[in-house]
Amino acid sequence: MHQTAEAILLNRNEVELLAKELGQDSLMGLSLNTMVNDTLNYMSSPIEIPGHGEAGGYEHNKHKLNYQYINQAGRLFLITGEERYAEYAAQLLLGYADVYLTLDYHIQRNTNPTGRLFHQILNEHVFLLYSSLGYSCISRYLSEEQRERIIEGLFRPLLEMSVVKYGHDFDRIHNHGLWAVAAVGICGLAIGEDKWMELSVHGLAGDDETGGFLAQIAKLFAPSGYYMEGPYYHRYAIRPLCLFAEVIGRHRPELDIFNYKDQVIGKTINAMLATAYPNGVFPALNDASLSMDICDAGVIVAVSLAYSHYGQNPLLLGVAKIQQKVWIHGCGLELSNAYQSEDKVELPLWPSVELNEGPNGDRGAQGFLRMQAKGGDISQLVMNYGQHGMGHGHFDTLGVSFFNRGQEVLKEYGFGRWVNVEPKFGGRYLDENKSYARQTIAHNLVSVDQGCQNQFDVATADAKHGTPHYFVGDDSKLQGMSAIADEFYPGVKQQRSLALINDELFDSPLLLDVYQLSSEEQHCYDYALQYQGQIIRTNFEYQSQSQLKTLGDDAGYQHLWNVASAEVDKERCSELSWLQGNSYYTWICSNQAGDEIIFTRSGANDPQFNLRSETSFILRREANSTVFANVLETHGYFNEAIEASTDARGQVKSVTVLANTEQACLISIAGDAFELLVMLSNLHGVPNDHQHTIEYNNTIYSWNGHLATQKIRG
Amino acid sequence: MHQTAEAILLNRNEVELLAKELGQDSLMGLSLNTMVNDTLNYMSSPIEIPGHGEAGGYEHNKHKLNYQYINQAGRLFLITGEERYAEYAAQLLLGYADVYLTLDYHIQRNTNPTGRLFHQILNEHVFLLYSSLGYSCISRYLSEEQRERIIEGLFRPLLEMSVVKYGHDFDRIHNHGLWAVAAVGICGLAIGEDKWMELSVHGLAGDDETGGFLAQIAKLFAPSGYYMEGPYYHRYAIRPLCLFAEVIGRHRPELDIFNYKDQVIGKTINAMLATAYPNGVFPALNDASLSMDICDAGVIVAVSLAYSHYGQNPLLLGVAKIQQKVWIHGCGLELSNAYQSEDKVELPLWPSVELNEGPNGDRGAQGFLRMQAKGGDISQLVMNYGQHGMGHGHFDTLGVSFFNRGQEVLKEYGFGRWVNVEPKFGGRYLDENKSYARQTIAHNLVSVDQGCQNQFDVATADAKHGTPHYFVGDDSKLQGMSAIADEFYPGVKQQRSLALINDELFDSPLLLDVYQLSSEEQHCYDYALQYQGQIIRTNFEYQSQSQLKTLGDDAGYQHLWNVASAEVDKERCSELSWLQGNSYYTWICSNQAGDEIIFTRSGANDPQFNLRSETSFILRREANSTVFANVLETHGYFNEAIEASTDARGQVKSVTVLANTEQACLISIAGDAFELLVMLSNLHGVPNDHQHTIEYNNTIYSWNGHLATQKIRG
Repeated sequence: MHQTAEAILLNRNEVELLAKELGQDSLMGLSLNTMVNDTLNYMSSPIEIPGHGEAGGYEHNKHKLNYQYINQAGRLFLITGEERYAEYAAQLLLGYADVYLTLDYHIQRNTNPTGRLFHQILNEHVFLLYSSLGYSCISRYLSEEQRERIIEGLFRPLLEMSVVKYGHDFDRIHNHGLWAVAAVGICGLAIGEDKWMELSVHGLAGDDETGGFLAQIAKLFAPSGYYMEGPYYHRYAIRPLCLFAEVIGRHRPELDIFNYKDQVIGKTINAMLATAYPNGVFPALNDASLSMDICDAGVIVAVSLAYSHYGQNPLLLGVAKIQQKVWIHGCGLELSNAYQSEDKVELPLWPSVELNEGPNGDRGAQGFLRMQAKGGDISQLVMNYGQHGMGHGHFDTLGVSFFNRGQEVLKEYGFGRWVNVEPKFGGRYLDENKSYARQTIAHNLVSVDQGCQNQFDVATADAKHGTPHYFVGDDSKLQGMSAIADEFYPGVKQQRSLALINDELFDSPLLLDVYQLSSEEQHCYDYALQYQGQIIRTNFEYQSQSQLKTLGDDAGYQHLWNVASAEVDKERCSELSWLQGNSYYTWICSNQAGDEIIFTRSGANDPQFNLRSETSFILRREANSTVFANVLETHGYFNEAIEASTDARGQVKSVTVLANTEQACLISIAGDAFELLVMLSNLHGVPNDHQHTIEYNNTIYSWNGHLATQKIRG
Repeated sequence: MHQTAEAILLNRNEVELLAKELGQDSLMGLSLNTMVNDTLNYMSSPIEIPGHGEAGGYEHNKHKLNYQYINQAGRLFLITGEERYAEYAAQLLLGYADVYLTLDYHIQRNTNPTGRLFHQILNEHVFLLYSSLGYSCISRYLSEEQRERIIEGLFRPLLEMSVVKYGHDFDRIHNHGLWAVAAVGICGLAIGEDKWMELSVHGLAGDDETGGFLAQIAKLFAPSGYYMEGPYYHRYAIRPLCLFAEVIGRHRPELDIFNYKDQVIGKTINAMLATAYPNGVFPALNDASLSMDICDAGVIVAVSLAYSHYGQNPLLLGVAKIQQKVWIHGCGLELSNAYQSEDKVELPLWPSVELNEGPNGDRGAQGFLRMQAKGGDISQLVMNYGQHGMGHGHFDTLGVSFFNRGQEVLKEYGFGRWVNVEPKFGGRYLDENKSYARQTIAHNLVSVDQGCQNQFDVATADAKHGTPHYFVGDDSKLQGMSAIADEFYPGVKQQRSLALINDELFDSPLLLDVYQLSSEEQHCYDYALQYQGQIIRTNFEYQSQSQLKTLGDDAGYQHLWNVASAEVDKERCSELSWLQGNSYYTWICSNQAGDEIIFTRSGANDPQFNLRSETSFILRREANSTVFANVLETHGYFNEAIEASTDARGQVKSVTVLANTEQACLISIAGDAFELLVMLSNLHGVPNDHQHTIEYNNTIYSWNGHLATQKIRG
């Protein structure tokens, strides 16, 4: 190998091993092949270093691409030994060094400080991190004069901007702070100046408390490893976290970073991965894109790193199977080799997990139930009973989302923005993010009196959190979680108890939702579910509107068209079936006198087509205290291309609350051929094996634990 | 090999060769593997032969599956030599033989005659065809007594039903008729009674005119090979056609069936394949599902057969690449072997083609333009200027659909039904098929005075057809087609001229649409395009409605919500961009004073949620005679998962009719950096190299042929 084969993140031995993977069909070989083709393709265009531009516009994108290819070309220079890569990275770095100080800082348009290349210093830090990594790969290829030009023209101004001009931001405990410290530390190491690393690791005050990487990772995550802004932001924070951790692991071994704070790094990677749906897409918890997934660059790094440093968890092989990519690094090579040595890698089935929130893990939690159907399909149910996710959080405590058969069934709307789509308000948050996406009614839960939880007040919401009741996730036939949210609406107590039930009668687990509200006053309760697809049938008559009006004036209701509505019969349960993709779904609910079901479509009061046109149905009930008891049955199969349809009708015909006491709730789920009783605890703070009893119809039902089922027919 | 290794469609040599493919990774090996797994899976359930049931219901599906597995098990018995397959097929056949005559005919509920197993004899014929093929594979395995039971209990009653009870239907020239004659002929051969084959080939009268396979295939298709009901029905008719043709080819070689009528069989297979979009999905011409594709069972057979009998067209290798399957038969083996011997098979790029309609090819045509972009992506433009597609035809002469980047961009609504979805009106046509899907306004063309072409009168429509003007499809930079539809609205002449333009400035071909209308009276012209996705920007102000009302009361307009509307400025062209999937699209149109643009969404007056909620925009203009000049530009890239967006704004800013004479139309397409002139012939009946001239601004433009372009800037 050539003599320059070493860099901050790649030692000589790794470079040699990686070089052997070129052209192989291992995950590493495939990853390298993709990177080579991609990099050569970019290198085939002339180098261009633009000036200022619009956020999300051409110049912005070009700067982003340039730092990416400085990094990639640097790494490929080491691995392939081909000088064209080094020369390309050098020309880009020298080009930036020549112009950087000639560019003024952007004009600040919001609370984010600006950089010279980008509108936000966040992006400037990402630039610094990647260009430093690339530089470290080619520094020995450069002449002394070239190194000097790059350091003085580009890196030093960037370092000083980070630590001096924006020092207040450098010490902020925040996902942006992770990028700042990682960038500065890595750059310092790349240019051989130790002081930057010191500041980055220990903070400006050097106290490991008010700032710096160690303080960041100690404080950003709950004991469970959950990140309060949700997986979408978590996967963005995890990238600098893992890159810098690996750098520290190599260059500051005395810090024993991978065991720091009870292995917080491994724990938070696991927590992040455990949120993902079975197809690898992250649930849009809190405020997020609908399509961010585990193939994101940061997650690729994190999975390779976790495999290497945290005990070679075989689930990570399944994750890599979805990713079809590894980090081009020694850690990734370990993962690739392990993957290659398996005959067959199964897709990952992460265990059900409740991830606590808050610095001490006592500010609620996010619950993730997973249950596998006969055929192997995984159902995943997510409930938010944790904290409000910072300033941009959604007001949806006790909200759920549900996934099976490869698709999200009870759907999160996600955020109201098109990231990087310049004509859509520069890719920034749209007004409708506040007026619709973050409102309670846009989610899968009850809205009270057509208002938003905590009156859409962030400070009020920040002061609260959901309260876990129980979480039972270790059984393949019956799982459940229950949580409480009191006073999210004044005078209203809410408890939601969810169960997944596997029974041989059903191809997929049933989802049971028992949503209890209690208040001394009468309220209008809107139990809403967001569905996608085509309504196939109902067992009740409904009236579609000849003109569409909005469902309300505020709290997101102003964006909903009232498409159709029904007065439903209290004597029987309502059934509502729809077709989504290749699967049928039927919602069955118990009714009470006066219940109304409303079909909605979003898009009202949307003067710039900023909303997606999506559908929900709402079960509306006027009551003081009440229970919404519902089942969602997944059934049948439809394939339009081959014109196949089976079991378009489900089996569940009724869900009935037989008894509801202080101790427990007894529910019957029944169809023509079966009846299943489900018992759910209402007792708080009892041990996991507490014996519950409830009497109904002169029979006493008794069970140990929070929930149980009993088949009494079928 | 075992001694029974022979059947109607498989000779001993083929069986031996197919047996060698078991376990191989050739297309044939994969096809066999799929069939083995699928068949064994079905065989693992007990045999069940139900009685009568609902159309599309359980019993219907079970009978369908049973005949399919009689056929598959029979073939696998020959190929694998395993008796379990023969025994399974035998048990099914004997089971049917025992019950068939105990089942009464279904009660007739529409014009279709009924069978004993199915509600339509069409299905009964399919049963007969496949069970006969399966029987022919195992007949030597059966005892004499078993053969007798099956023939007398099942096949003879079915044959007599087809030829006697429903003799009038047997001789009908129709896609159902093909199934009838193929089934009867194949069954006759399988049981060794020649007379059925005679009737099937030559018709009841034996004249090759009034009925029978030869008359059918001579009369069903236009000289171009096009089938007037469109590709959705074509692919259904092609299955019995090909199966029976192969049987005839083997057992009646004297008929020289593959050269019959100027190779009508090969021609019609080619015509069918040439309609398909680049991803293999058939455009929903006439009345069709949106997702029927070339992976349909009949198309699999047709492609293998065409490859074997019609000169091994290399395009068919590309088709097989999409299908990833071949017909399990000697023909399929040829295709599989050829595919296997290629290093790399490209996806097929079918040439642009105009398929004439009517028995003599003089009743209009269907036009298919295909043009490849720099990166290889294929744009396909389809225009219907042929016949009304029989009783269920759509009223959309001059309607278009457009496909690129893997998706349909200008969209066909398709039919209003969910085939086999029993709770949706038994899978039959829904009322909204007539009231919306077949109406002019549901398509991509001009509706006049908010009415439907030919007042939605089938007889009137049947008497008319579009008139081809020109078709230029053999140039990689400029293609065009033009057609005329006069008196589809009383007193209104319509001419639509479309062009695809490849220029290095654009990543994808531009679509130019010049739609001319002329009348002595003033009319309201609604130029409508059906789009999918999210509106990204417009260069005009629009007002969204605070309440939604329908756009009209009739002709499909009653199903459209008026979502927003704009009065557009005649001084400048309107631009309207949307995001569909990973691509941006911008429509640019020239305006006139008083023009209005209306955004619609389907779903009004839809009391059972039978419509899909889809979007269109309409350019409305009051005029006597007018020209709608529009460009559709495909541009940029969006990927939400990686938050990438490029070129969200297009380059075209204006499209202007500079001059429009009896001879030609001169159009300018311009942007900041370019101007392109497009010249389109208005002359009818001139030769392809006719010299046209048009004067504008004291310059005379002159060109040979129907259309030309000239870059004058950029």
